Amino acid sequence: MSNTDISQPLRAALGPDVVLTEPADIEPWLADWRGIYRGQAQAVLRPRTTAEVAQALALCQAAGVPVVPRGGNTGLCGGATPDGSTANVVLSLDRMNAVRSIDTIANTLVAEAGCILGNLRRAAQDAGRLLPLSLAAEDSSQIGGNLATNAGGVNVVRYGMARELVLGIEAVLPTGEIFNGLRTLRKDNTGYDLKQLLIGSEGTLGVITAVALRLFPRTDVRSVVLAAVESPRQALELYELLFQRCGARLQAYEFFTGECVDLVLTHAQGVQEPFAQRYPAYVLMELADTTDEAALNALLETVVGEALERELCLDAAVSASLGQLQALWKLREEISEAQRADGPHLKHDVSLPIERIPAFMESAEARLRAFNADVRPFIFGHFGDGNLHYNLSRPAGAPREWAAQEGAEITDIVLDEVHRYGGSISAEHGIGQLKRDHFLHIKDPLELRLMREIKRVFDPAGIMNPGKLL
Amino acid sequence: MSNTDISQPLRAALGPDVVLTEPADIEPWLADWRGIYRGQAQAVLRPRTTAEVAQALALCQAAGVPVVPRGGNTGLCGGATPDGSTANVVLSLDRMNAVRSIDTIANTLVAEAGCILGNLRRAAQDAGRLLPLSLAAEDSSQIGGNLATNAGGVNVVRYGMARELVLGIEAVLPTGEIFNGLRTLRKDNTGYDLKQLLIGSEGTLGVITAVALRLFPRTDVRSVVLAAVESPRQALELYELLFQRCGARLQAYEFFTGECVDLVLTHAQGVQEPFAQRYPAYVLMELADTTDEAALNALLETVVGEALERELCLDAAVSASLGQLQALWKLREEISEAQRADGPHLKHDVSLPIERIPAFMESAEARLRAFNADVRPFIFGHFGDGNLHYNLSRPAGAPREWAAQEGAEITDIVLDEVHRYGGSISAEHGIGQLKRDHFLHIKDPLELRLMREIKRVFDPAGIMNPGKLL
Repeated sequence: MSNTDISQPLRAALGPDVVLTEPADIEPWLADWRGIYRGQAQAVLRPRTTAEVAQALALCQAAGVPVVPRGGNTGLCGGATPDGSTANVVLSLDRMNAVRSIDTIANTLVAEAGCILGNLRRAAQDAGRLLPLSLAAEDSSQIGGNLATNAGGVNVVRYGMARELVLGIEAVLPTGEIFNGLRTLRKDNTGYDLKQLLIGSEGTLGVITAVALRLFPRTDVRSVVLAAVESPRQALELYELLFQRCGARLQAYEFFTGECVDLVLTHAQGVQEPFAQRYPAYVLMELADTTDEAALNALLETVVGEALERELCLDAAVSASLGQLQALWKLREEISEAQRADGPHLKHDVSLPIERIPAFMESAEARLRAFNADVRPFIFGHFGDGNLHYNLSRPAGAPREWAAQEGAEITDIVLDEVHRYGGSISAEHGIGQLKRDHFLHIKDPLELRLMREIKRVFDPAGIMNPGKLL
Repeated sequence: MSNTDISQPLRAALGPDVVLTEPADIEPWLADWRGIYRGQAQAVLRPRTTAEVAQALALCQAAGVPVVPRGGNTGLCGGATPDGSTANVVLSLDRMNAVRSIDTIANTLVAEAGCILGNLRRAAQDAGRLLPLSLAAEDSSQIGGNLATNAGGVNVVRYGMARELVLGIEAVLPTGEIFNGLRTLRKDNTGYDLKQLLIGSEGTLGVITAVALRLFPRTDVRSVVLAAVESPRQALELYELLFQRCGARLQAYEFFTGECVDLVLTHAQGVQEPFAQRYPAYVLMELADTTDEAALNALLETVVGEALERELCLDAAVSASLGQLQALWKLREEISEAQRADGPHLKHDVSLPIERIPAFMESAEARLRAFNADVRPFIFGHFGDGNLHYNLSRPAGAPREWAAQEGAEITDIVLDEVHRYGGSISAEHGIGQLKRDHFLHIKDPLELRLMREIKRVFDPAGIMNPGKLL
């Protein structure tokens, strides 16, 4: 990579307001939010328009200067953090935050890449529609980053990943060319679906500058059930029942172990013990519909009754009010924060063919315990999508440096087991810097070759987000 | 392209049973089912395994021999018909027709590419699940071809195009390499989503040999409403109401003009006049759910009542039995066949931003009437997806050669109007040979360049399906 000083030409083209170079101004853009990754850069750009993004990329490509696109910086894999090269230019989309249109006949939302996901969700809601993409970081993450990483979240079981919600995108290629794919068509069978490459490419092919998303009917009638289960196998059988009976109403199917509940009750405020006793694991199910609360509740009562009768769960609590619904969700939502409060831990965002989750969990735990009998796994996640957050906290009595000492080996064990059971080492967080070595090791060589050649088609000078993904 | 005689090496590698070369044996594979396209070939291959497909492609690539993949031959754009070169090898997937697995816990179906779509739908149904891809040719079309063309059909408004139902594919590249992407994971964020390129590529990048599809809960509770509307604008307002109130239950929203009903009543057997009078246009809506017929009917009654009260339709008929439901569907399903019986006609499978359909229809008809005052448009289609089949039959008194004389100009007018209103010249049928010139003319030059370069990555020798798409 070139070490050309690009700030002068950038400033001349875009104006001083867009180009930050003072160390103090740049500083906040050099690390990920968790402080795990830190890099360097010669400049930070905050363009206001697609045309400015295009100018910037063309200048950087001509000079061979690496560009690191940056959204809301909520990623967990270091994908938006520059590497150690002082040549880097960080390109932030934060100023491109206009909603261009919300159409309740076409059921589309068109917005610039820097819009905060939570703001878009509220804008859709206000217009009487649902933007179903929803995740813990939604009030900081930007929609461009959500698409660049193909974000998931809690509603995937019903609405799919970010990719599945996209009708079109506008993007700037490193050549400075603008990809004008901001179409709102539901059907368009005219050649290769190029936008699919940019979605999930983690900024390695170009910069997404605007998005056109599908909107859905609002599902204001909601109900939540918390079921206690004895094992992931029982959670699987319960899932089969819910899927079959409730159809599209099932919009979340979350799993967490009893250990996660212990952690939440220890660290979080205002959370209540859900049952009179602790159970091995829990499933939180949300059903939602556009209409008819009575019918939804009746359905739920029938299904929960059948689940108890067929012994597909040990106990169940149904929300009877919005307050109860939120209280039940809190048990699930507070897990990450409680784990942070508990201390150092290792995160693994993995997915599996759903029917193999029980066998995977058994096998992974056995191997981990053979490595260190005191490991403390905290397993939770979007069970209905086969997605587990397989996290481990510091064992009791282990030194503060535990993660540095044992982390690499533990992660190798977890990801190797995932691979052995036909799963994916990254379900929804992407690869970034964190999983790059494992990705390059595990991925099929033919797929890696195709990806590298496609990368050359889009980014012949290789300036886009070096050291991430490929 | 090379004119090498490849049949000897193919026969030596695959056995005589797989390689047809006798003119009489080859003959049935040289034309599309409508008899519009006809080409030539030196051999037809009918491999039985993925390994045989790989051997065949490697031999053809080494010799520079063009390969034309062929599914059920139900396409409407000549995409599976060889061109005029005697060098062509047609590769049929028809013998690769095993269902590998149906899993009702994972809700997945894995099948070889040559499986007939209708058979897969029935297999899923028998297992208590729904494979929602459904189209007129489903009892002849093969699932590999459905994916290669990203097929649509009547349930897209709820379940999406073929692309959206795919979890994984196995494919053979022209190099003979096997793309092992037959994963059943719902979430897998590990690099570029390469399968998305092969889906919809119309056989120009490789040969899909097996597919992993998502299954859904069976929606056995169904109800159909036929509503009479005065205009496409009213159909749009009615759609907004249905979308909002019925949510995911709305699984078909079909539109057809009064002229289409005339045609069906003239040519089809056992079809009944739906109302006491003829209306300008009609909308057929299907609602479906996993459960609770009474609740679905109550919802429908409320919504139809509101539609009549708010004057979003002129009249409405609700199916009260399966027989009535099928009779209402017949009005829509018989349109294509009735048009064939009526005589020569021109087909245009287009899509539009749904809110622009009324303006497009007005503008296109005005331009067509200025060209020939006697044009006879028959407009129907998947309105909820913005997808119109904008067909024209021979004007009264026009010569038999009408289509040859005026067809090109009429198609130019229709597709130009589609482009002007931000639509797509191919909604669900693809490009093939039929729309190649228009595609190359209309598509953004940057997108065309990227597609050509991606084609070179997958197919460096350029042997895959020449003369189609690109």
